[in-house]
Amino acid sequence: MRAYPECIPCLVKQGLNAAEKLNLPKEKLYEVAKAGVRYLAQFEEFDRSPAYYAYHIQKFVKELTGVEDPFREIKRISNLKAEEILNKLNVEEYLKGDRLRRALKLSAIGNILDFAILSEEEAYGKILQLLEKDFAIDHSEWFERELETSERVLILGDNAGEIVFDKVLVKVLKELGKEVVYAVKGAPILNDATLEDAKMVSLTSLCRVITNGNDRVGTDLSVASEEFLNEWQRADLVVSKGQANFESLSGIGDKVIYFLLTAKCRPVVLESGASKVGDLIFKRNKPLEGGN
Amino acid sequence: MRAYPECIPCLVKQGLNAAEKLNLPKEKLYEVAKAGVRYLAQFEEFDRSPAYYAYHIQKFVKELTGVEDPFREIKRISNLKAEEILNKLNVEEYLKGDRLRRALKLSAIGNILDFAILSEEEAYGKILQLLEKDFAIDHSEWFERELETSERVLILGDNAGEIVFDKVLVKVLKELGKEVVYAVKGAPILNDATLEDAKMVSLTSLCRVITNGNDRVGTDLSVASEEFLNEWQRADLVVSKGQANFESLSGIGDKVIYFLLTAKCRPVVLESGASKVGDLIFKRNKPLEGGN
Repeated sequence: MRAYPECIPCLVKQGLNAAEKLNLPKEKLYEVAKAGVRYLAQFEEFDRSPAYYAYHIQKFVKELTGVEDPFREIKRISNLKAEEILNKLNVEEYLKGDRLRRALKLSAIGNILDFAILSEEEAYGKILQLLEKDFAIDHSEWFERELETSERVLILGDNAGEIVFDKVLVKVLKELGKEVVYAVKGAPILNDATLEDAKMVSLTSLCRVITNGNDRVGTDLSVASEEFLNEWQRADLVVSKGQANFESLSGIGDKVIYFLLTAKCRPVVLESGASKVGDLIFKRNKPLEGGN
Repeated sequence: MRAYPECIPCLVKQGLNAAEKLNLPKEKLYEVAKAGVRYLAQFEEFDRSPAYYAYHIQKFVKELTGVEDPFREIKRISNLKAEEILNKLNVEEYLKGDRLRRALKLSAIGNILDFAILSEEEAYGKILQLLEKDFAIDHSEWFERELETSERVLILGDNAGEIVFDKVLVKVLKELGKEVVYAVKGAPILNDATLEDAKMVSLTSLCRVITNGNDRVGTDLSVASEEFLNEWQRADLVVSKGQANFESLSGIGDKVIYFLLTAKCRPVVLESGASKVGDLIFKRNKPLEGGN
């Protein structure tokens, strides 16, 4: 999707939010905001995805901290908290009846929570509450149908913490006999999961984990590694997690992609066809032929 | 007050919000956002008030509509709705017991509501609810004390709609024998009240209404008219309404100013000493000598 006008101030704000999480002093926050407006001021057209611009703005945060992985500690805490919460949840009980759809929902809910900010108790409470919620866009029947004739599923991961809940989805897909490959970022960007996170939460012992070979926000195929593009080609189905991946891949039509996310702003609500911010979405990139 | 880092994206967003209210098409919204980031990208320091930058960004909205007073209809509707609501409120009953403080509170509540957006019913309901709320910062005792030895009160108005509720405050001050002068904007800016609004709601028949001689957001003394500066000098007390006036006058120490507003964002919460967004504030610019 193309950036909306309202994405422009939001992108600057995102840079500031990141800087605030890292406790940068006020003078550094001014620098981040200035770098943001100066970067955006150069464009005549905003025809790229919000994730594309977000990547460049987040680079200023890296530069200003002088640290290659400023979110490392935040990611570690998120993983730990999410693991605790997953252990506390009675997952097998929850999955009963409709294992695949429920695993998908748990994965989408993982996308809504900021594990670094919420206490374990708060996050746990929110999850129980959100599990009651239905997908606002639910293409899980199409997904199940296509899965029957599919062998390889590529999951595009999003954040640390969230990655823990994706393990349930990986397990359920594997029970169905699918070969699952999970892709993380090739280098640190924001709080996105990297190989380090995949190892930390033992995702690597569940399925093959690859990286996309770069540190972009979302998934930009034009800068992806050969290994990633190879898996992308081979996959029968792609499950794309989170808003940034949706932003960068929603325009792709020559691959079957199911977007699994929580809509966090009005532009994504509009582009996805959801009805409001906070909606859980499981949406095929285009209608399934012969599906209804 | 000086603009905070987070004011920078917020200023761009404000421009967009204004443009959205005017139903400008998406391409114009991109133009507003681009003009906003380009304008802000030129600054090395953000040592002016948010209202100062807001003024310049709002000028782009005027330029893009090609209309001198793009909010004219919104202001008219706000005045009409606010008048209906005031007629519905049993003001004399409400004022009983503590007339001045209650008139001040009603005036602060007028600052919180967007009469153009809310239906009359919604606005009326909100007012009843907010009347139950206390000032988070309440210097009304100091105000009453100072009022005893004061003759002239200058009120700096804020928006259309809101101006209607200020009439109650003007009446109560006049009952106390004070000479009240009410200042509006000298030319259209955003939905700020002008002489046209003061006439429309018959404020002009209650007290002398002057303009500040310009179209700035807030009150910038460096560009105010001689007539305004004359009244400013002569006034014993200034009552400054709304956030933009607070932003532009909070640094002034050589005049007694009481700020009457609702804190609408974190920077103003921090600068005013309020505790949270939404707090009603009635605050003297500096502690009253000998006051406690």
